[in-house]
Amino acid sequence: MKYPMGINKETKAISYGNRGMALEHDINETNQYYLHNDIAIIYKKPTPITITKVNYHSRKDAIITEAYFKTPSTTDYNGIYKGKYIDFEAKETKLPYFPLRNIHEHQIEHLNKIMKHGGIGFLIIHFVSLQKIYYLDGSKLIQYIENTKKKTIPIDYFEKEGYSIKHKINPRIDYLSIVDKIYFKGE
Amino acid sequence: MKYPMGINKETKAISYGNRGMALEHDINETNQYYLHNDIAIIYKKPTPITITKVNYHSRKDAIITEAYFKTPSTTDYNGIYKGKYIDFEAKETKLPYFPLRNIHEHQIEHLNKIMKHGGIGFLIIHFVSLQKIYYLDGSKLIQYIENTKKKTIPIDYFEKEGYSIKHKINPRIDYLSIVDKIYFKGE
Repeated sequence: MKYPMGINKETKAISYGNRGMALEHDINETNQYYLHNDIAIIYKKPTPITITKVNYHSRKDAIITEAYFKTPSTTDYNGIYKGKYIDFEAKETKLPYFPLRNIHEHQIEHLNKIMKHGGIGFLIIHFVSLQKIYYLDGSKLIQYIENTKKKTIPIDYFEKEGYSIKHKINPRIDYLSIVDKIYFKGE
Repeated sequence: MKYPMGINKETKAISYGNRGMALEHDINETNQYYLHNDIAIIYKKPTPITITKVNYHSRKDAIITEAYFKTPSTTDYNGIYKGKYIDFEAKETKLPYFPLRNIHEHQIEHLNKIMKHGGIGFLIIHFVSLQKIYYLDGSKLIQYIENTKKKTIPIDYFEKEGYSIKHKINPRIDYLSIVDKIYFKGE
């Protein structure tokens, strides 16, 4: 079926453009592992949407028939670990560097505020073609942005200022092991 | 228009049954106040939904044409205040007591875990007909549940173990003033 405005697709949310879904899946599994082992309580926030039409009898069998994606004002993941507030964003890119346009300005400001209030903020970036996953602390992200006008972060910066995370079976992406190294050294 | 299964309504999300929306609105305003005055960073999580159909060209002009409400596994609000992780649920009731079925069991378990991990967890309950808003600390909620088989919490319990919050112009529901009393007494 062709629509005047372009291609019409009907698809499940999970395969939505498939962008970042593999990483998202692995991080959700990791968070489940942390939760079940009573290590940390960290969740992905639901996708923010504006609902414009709902057919319902009760909330239980309501069907949303029209809604739109909203630009997120915060990051996707937050929670608590060793009494500390944790906040991060996870992104996937096929490029061999990280384009800053992949994160909304609001989200960077949000991470900055979180750190100023005593929270732990960071990015997890999966470089798909390089088969590398990096943790980049929020402080290093802000430092980079404040000292350059470039619109991309080169892989070297991740190599030098970030931490490589090895993909494992369980937990798949053990990002809290990096948080331990940076924030809980003495413990 | 009549549908075989019952009444069909098309409505904006904001007027969805109108249940708890006034309270939600006031808490969102309060959180905006905290954010703009650099007091705390606390947000309401988006409503969790399962998206089953999307028409899209790009994410920007995607239209969700079929989606369903999901049962939340966590509470609605979380964030950071004075370096501490904050987590709470807000509910409105017209009854002169609080029915425990208004909170999902998952949410109570979630609050309990948060506290065990060093976070601050609580409820904000608006008794609409009594024109009273109470803060009930998570510890008092758990205490009540563990010591009774009742399915409701009487107003007396809120009066005795909780804290009344006066509705103000700005911030409307200053729940962090209660958090200060309980958790930051010496400061």
